[in-house]
Amino acid sequence: MNSETATQTPEDETLPSVPEHPFIKEMLRQVRASDTYGFYDNASPAELLKPFVVTKAQRKQLPLVADPDDQVIGRLKNWYAAIAMQIEAGSGRMASPLMNLSSEGFGRVVIIAGHLVVVDRTLREAHRFGFISLEKMCEDADRLVASALALIEAHPAAAEG
Amino acid sequence: MNSETATQTPEDETLPSVPEHPFIKEMLRQVRASDTYGFYDNASPAELLKPFVVTKAQRKQLPLVADPDDQVIGRLKNWYAAIAMQIEAGSGRMASPLMNLSSEGFGRVVIIAGHLVVVDRTLREAHRFGFISLEKMCEDADRLVASALALIEAHPAAAEG
Repeated sequence: MNSETATQTPEDETLPSVPEHPFIKEMLRQVRASDTYGFYDNASPAELLKPFVVTKAQRKQLPLVADPDDQVIGRLKNWYAAIAMQIEAGSGRMASPLMNLSSEGFGRVVIIAGHLVVVDRTLREAHRFGFISLEKMCEDADRLVASALALIEAHPAAAEG
Repeated sequence: MNSETATQTPEDETLPSVPEHPFIKEMLRQVRASDTYGFYDNASPAELLKPFVVTKAQRKQLPLVADPDDQVIGRLKNWYAAIAMQIEAGSGRMASPLMNLSSEGFGRVVIIAGHLVVVDRTLREAHRFGFISLEKMCEDADRLVASALALIEAHPAAAEG
């Protein structure tokens, strides 16, 4: 790799393995929905989800200076939108994400159902958003969704809004 | 007024009357706190709060194209920060605002206490943020704070976080 590619996600030709998991279907829906012009209509699931996989070696090479670019912000939105959809599917209630990201990649994202904050995360180093594998992504999603559903169950009146 | 000043808030030399109201003190604290360099150290309360007063005639002249400028975004943040502080004072719970503003002046702002969304507002025409008078600002603040405190009272466990 030369010094020019080091300022981008280092290129790696291998495609990630795509687990059989309901969250993967939701992620693909989100990614395809944000592909307004159909540029990726012919892309495979592995190709579409590859940008979400960031290995430890790649992480270190992603610079933290300046604003996170629109593509990584788009991926963050895809991810939290997919989590919100899974929460809706599991609870039967509307859930919507709200993200505030500062120019330095710090911020906060919440997912709201009724009057209840069901996901609340601090964002750090948004430039480096990604998972070491798609399996890990599905595990994280399952954990976030399960804790959101537990909160809704604990506070049904607040979640009704 | 010439065509150049029409793209700014139309200038008006009269200062607003400043009501005796606890919310005014909080607003002044917020405005002074965001004056990092002390430019307005010698400004009177009326001078500091004047930009929050936008008459109907002024509103119409504020253009809605392009991004709301940093100053109006700063005033929106001052306003919701002051509301959050009043909610804290009334409930004894931490309350923090989270705002997402698109480049066209649309967005959403929430104030969160624990797991509870105590204020939830859609932002439209953020370019034109302001009140017809400071009395009206205090009335709006009282209403928002009262409804937030009622929500906390209705859902104390969720507000505990």
